[in-house]
Amino acid sequence: MSLSDNPIRRRGLMLVLSSPSGAGKTTIARRLLQADENLVMSVSSTTRPPRPGERPGQDYDFVSVARFQAMVAAGEMLEHAQVFDNFYGTPALPVQQSLAAGLDVLFDIDWQGTQQLRQAARGDLASIFILPPAVPELERRLTQRAQDSPDIVQMRMARAGDEMSHWPEYDYIVVNHTLEASVASVHAILTAERLKRDRQVGLPDFVKDLRSRT
Amino acid sequence: MSLSDNPIRRRGLMLVLSSPSGAGKTTIARRLLQADENLVMSVSSTTRPPRPGERPGQDYDFVSVARFQAMVAAGEMLEHAQVFDNFYGTPALPVQQSLAAGLDVLFDIDWQGTQQLRQAARGDLASIFILPPAVPELERRLTQRAQDSPDIVQMRMARAGDEMSHWPEYDYIVVNHTLEASVASVHAILTAERLKRDRQVGLPDFVKDLRSRT
Repeated sequence: MSLSDNPIRRRGLMLVLSSPSGAGKTTIARRLLQADENLVMSVSSTTRPPRPGERPGQDYDFVSVARFQAMVAAGEMLEHAQVFDNFYGTPALPVQQSLAAGLDVLFDIDWQGTQQLRQAARGDLASIFILPPAVPELERRLTQRAQDSPDIVQMRMARAGDEMSHWPEYDYIVVNHTLEASVASVHAILTAERLKRDRQVGLPDFVKDLRSRT
Repeated sequence: MSLSDNPIRRRGLMLVLSSPSGAGKTTIARRLLQADENLVMSVSSTTRPPRPGERPGQDYDFVSVARFQAMVAAGEMLEHAQVFDNFYGTPALPVQQSLAAGLDVLFDIDWQGTQQLRQAARGDLASIFILPPAVPELERRLTQRAQDSPDIVQMRMARAGDEMSHWPEYDYIVVNHTLEASVASVHAILTAERLKRDRQVGLPDFVKDLRSRT
């Protein structure tokens, strides 16, 4: 399903946040959503079981493998990927509805999803890679997730390295030294992207009648 | 003279503010310079006489027509243009020195200058057009410049219309509803441009060793 199936009355903006697990992306995303009224979160679908504290329909839509595969087959996913034994994907419909309503949409997806979404978005996507300031810090944060075994932590570290190797594919790079600074950086990027000429929707009427003589 | 004559140890950023006269650009620029330590103003050279209150070397370098034309002939101007009977231009040397010192440079130039600077900058330029919220407001602000005669005001209005017709050539558009909001918008653009992947200079060492496997 392509994003152009629905006519969009405003040039909406898709903002992608990617990072290795444990680099602080989820916290940054939550703070950004609280600070910005015109931004909504894209909720991914996944076949993995919920972790303690995760809210169905808010953190993820938790679906069966059969349901997930049916949506992919029907072209109802903007992007999808397999991570370890689980599937993750972005249903197209809520994104199209949000953009059509004039809202910007925030995506918390990995490099594979970003590559696919970039195709579907046709230029209406800005991508940000959040980097941890150093590797040991990342390890520390990953280890603090008490519910995970050392094996899982090690697998996550390997995956984090793989994920981080894709930073050169992103439009913007934010190094997460402090939460406050990173939230401000990501918010500045969102503000600037909205002010890009092609996305401006608040131009005074008089400028539309101006014609360049050169 | 090209900007690449000097090796630049950091990918510096040139930020252009253009607007019709009276749209608030100069005030926005001044506030931005106060708020940001890493930003310096490019001082233009002009052959017009100083206005009351203008400080030589800070607002403009006031030079003779002979001196101006000698600089242009020697290739020492990054851009130059004639406006009414006066010449305006940007000397290349101070800009190159600032960029080489790791500073970003702010330019208060018109559409003609921006077109020339875009050639010299080779991608290291972000351009912002400041629009007034409405035409009558612009007229009011122009009329408040007590030292100008009605004829001059009328000539300025015609020039403002011409200048505004070039807004589609700029990367970003800021409508100057309030000074506070406009300064915040321009500052967000500057922050975001610095976070672009190719301009990042603060990346952690470990990411430079990562290689993507895809």
